[in-house]
Amino acid sequence: MDDCIFCRISAGELPAEIVHSDNEIMAFRDINPVAPTHILIIPRKHIPSNREIQPGDEPLLGRLFVVARDLAVMEGIDAQGYRLILNTGDHGGQVVYHLHLHLIGGQAMQHPMG
Amino acid sequence: MDDCIFCRISAGELPAEIVHSDNEIMAFRDINPVAPTHILIIPRKHIPSNREIQPGDEPLLGRLFVVARDLAVMEGIDAQGYRLILNTGDHGGQVVYHLHLHLIGGQAMQHPMG
Repeated sequence: MDDCIFCRISAGELPAEIVHSDNEIMAFRDINPVAPTHILIIPRKHIPSNREIQPGDEPLLGRLFVVARDLAVMEGIDAQGYRLILNTGDHGGQVVYHLHLHLIGGQAMQHPMG
Repeated sequence: MDDCIFCRISAGELPAEIVHSDNEIMAFRDINPVAPTHILIIPRKHIPSNREIQPGDEPLLGRLFVVARDLAVMEGIDAQGYRLILNTGDHGGQVVYHLHLHLIGGQAMQHPMG
């Protein structure tokens, strides 16, 4: 996906502050953080959004939560807590059409979620 | 977990407006919706929060996304989009300590996510 910014980050073609990398998943800091910790966790596989997930993707998707759990410990935000967000489509406010899980923490989240 | 409200809903001991039910996962409408569609998707297994997920939980956690995808289609919010949120701990604003994924849609989500 030559025109996907997250595929290009995954391929090492664009810079990012990478905080996790394995053969299936990578994570890097959001360039416009909304909180002290704001990390994007992505599958290397190009899945545009939650609308396009396929049978068989479940273990990969579940690993996004596991990586989030481990990164929260590394960031020191595990005990106080954090929010995970996956935006889908226009109403969700999705900006980049490569599925990504936001890990946000380091401050109390605002109450309105929607 | 006798004192867990979501385990009791899962067991049929407390009422809820159930929109999905299978042997691993159930989903029901939030009683305090923040948007036209606001559904909680839970594993029947009692996992208090994302902090307590274990190796082997990945396929189950991934299925939460799949159920969300399918419910979004059923709710008619798939095309316009939606937001999925998993709150963890105090800073995340987690209220019930049984892991649950919020499916929120039917309106454009507010920009601030954190």
